[in-house]
Amino acid sequence: MTEAITIDDIRAAQRRLASVARVTPLLESPFLNALAGRRVLVKAECLQRTGSFKFRGGWSAVSALPEAARKRGVIAFSSGNHAQGVAHAAELMGVTAVIVMPGDAPALKLANTRAHGAEVVLYDRVAGESREEIGGRIAEARGLTLIRPFDEPMVMAGQGTCGLEIAVQAREAGVERADVLVCCGGGGLSSGIALALEAEAPGLRVRTCEPAGFDDWARSLVAGERLANPTESGSICDAIVTPSPGQLTFPILQRLAGPGLAVTDDEALMAMGQAFLRLKIVAEPGGAVALAAALYRAGEIEGEAVICTVSGGNVDPAMFARALATV
Amino acid sequence: MTEAITIDDIRAAQRRLASVARVTPLLESPFLNALAGRRVLVKAECLQRTGSFKFRGGWSAVSALPEAARKRGVIAFSSGNHAQGVAHAAELMGVTAVIVMPGDAPALKLANTRAHGAEVVLYDRVAGESREEIGGRIAEARGLTLIRPFDEPMVMAGQGTCGLEIAVQAREAGVERADVLVCCGGGGLSSGIALALEAEAPGLRVRTCEPAGFDDWARSLVAGERLANPTESGSICDAIVTPSPGQLTFPILQRLAGPGLAVTDDEALMAMGQAFLRLKIVAEPGGAVALAAALYRAGEIEGEAVICTVSGGNVDPAMFARALATV
Repeated sequence: MTEAITIDDIRAAQRRLASVARVTPLLESPFLNALAGRRVLVKAECLQRTGSFKFRGGWSAVSALPEAARKRGVIAFSSGNHAQGVAHAAELMGVTAVIVMPGDAPALKLANTRAHGAEVVLYDRVAGESREEIGGRIAEARGLTLIRPFDEPMVMAGQGTCGLEIAVQAREAGVERADVLVCCGGGGLSSGIALALEAEAPGLRVRTCEPAGFDDWARSLVAGERLANPTESGSICDAIVTPSPGQLTFPILQRLAGPGLAVTDDEALMAMGQAFLRLKIVAEPGGAVALAAALYRAGEIEGEAVICTVSGGNVDPAMFARALATV
Repeated sequence: MTEAITIDDIRAAQRRLASVARVTPLLESPFLNALAGRRVLVKAECLQRTGSFKFRGGWSAVSALPEAARKRGVIAFSSGNHAQGVAHAAELMGVTAVIVMPGDAPALKLANTRAHGAEVVLYDRVAGESREEIGGRIAEARGLTLIRPFDEPMVMAGQGTCGLEIAVQAREAGVERADVLVCCGGGGLSSGIALALEAEAPGLRVRTCEPAGFDDWARSLVAGERLANPTESGSICDAIVTPSPGQLTFPILQRLAGPGLAVTDDEALMAMGQAFLRLKIVAEPGGAVALAAALYRAGEIEGEAVICTVSGGNVDPAMFARALATV
């Protein structure tokens, strides 16, 4: 079966993103190296516009639409980083964005999405309203294009631009062979990075990182088929808890990724604390699982260096205070 | 009178720092722009090696020493960022570093300085021991070169490399005219940046930022002579509280800087909170005064855009928790 995108799609996305997205730094601290027992290079995607890598995919998808579709507008379902990524990308391009969000989403996330100029449509998660149904109705009535969070070729291509940057920055740091740990929900970032590295840095291998108990990727990669999580709630790493691996992302990672890793919520909090203390960056729980694996699962990793993404930093102060308490 | 350094010294320092220091990003958030009423571009020096701009000056000074002096080693007096900057620079070059620190310095700062391979010599601040006397004795006995924190030409040249980066990055961001707010203690960073901008971006003008009540720079620039602070204790922005403007740094800023700005400790904490929320970076109180001025002293600033440094992020979790409480 042909995969959803190729390296050419990622390179094209990079051209569309040039001068809009930030080239985020690859950070390193001698203290983290000592803690992990090897060099730890951290791709700080929390410094991306909107505070997570999702802006890459949002911009890539909206900018790839034909002019007529762009004029009608886009729609997305998300309570989190994808909402902000799509909303801000659309705002910058002057495109209408409707974001369907649960009515009980945190006030800050609602406010941020609205501040990016998006029209927010609320649904009642508890009453069992289906966001797909509501969103589908609005999309059809207004001719909006749906931008899915990961199983969407142009979104995957956008996330892959992070991998093109890693390839260059790892080489500059003198690292040719390493595991690349990626915080993994639906697999958009992981699969995009994997394809980029296959082409540009074949000595670098993606490994998915997830919260323990929600390791659908790790189990699916072993089984060779897409397995679901038993439940979707109960982790503080909510941003990367999805029902199961994506349909388009799974074949790519099955072909290219190494064994998956999983860390506990406490380890994610500790990694957030270390990112604060040693790198001076803000990581959210779901964005810290890859760093947590680098620091606290060193025995499951190969090589003299490891690369990991800190994929987002959209965390509320109360949760961050819990991370500070681990330092 | 000839000034202590010229733009050529800064350019030479940049060549020595290339591939060692990080080119830190110039960040921007639409939310901060809205809060300030103009574009706010933030030079994130907290992401520099050792968590502050001081690494630039440390490396610049140590790498400029003649081979024989480097072999004997260097010495610095500091309980903070300058200590770590010099220690880490010396460590990377295989140079012996002795750091004279107060015995009551925070445990983390002592541990970090030692972890960078420095030999830490403690003195009793309360008993009135003079660090200059202790340090002078050790330096003489062992032939060590003293690296002063700001009134040191090669340190000033190193800090100036931050200004060369600002000149390029501001142009890329489309900003040709703006005030450049710099967190200012002894004036090493401010004077270095001012000289760099004079040569590379003459539409950008440095303005010193200090804690209210410790605004020796603001008052000295008005008076045309170096005035002292009435006291050196009582601000949470301890990293930038110095007795008075430096002898070498003052003439440069008198010639090039605009009027100084001052902010309260509460405003510094609020700016740390905004840096957490909107930029996903960790600022220490003294490193946040320029951002605080950009956000909360907008009426004292000119132009459609303002640039400010977040000069360091070495803050303990308890203090950072106070900043989180402002969000």
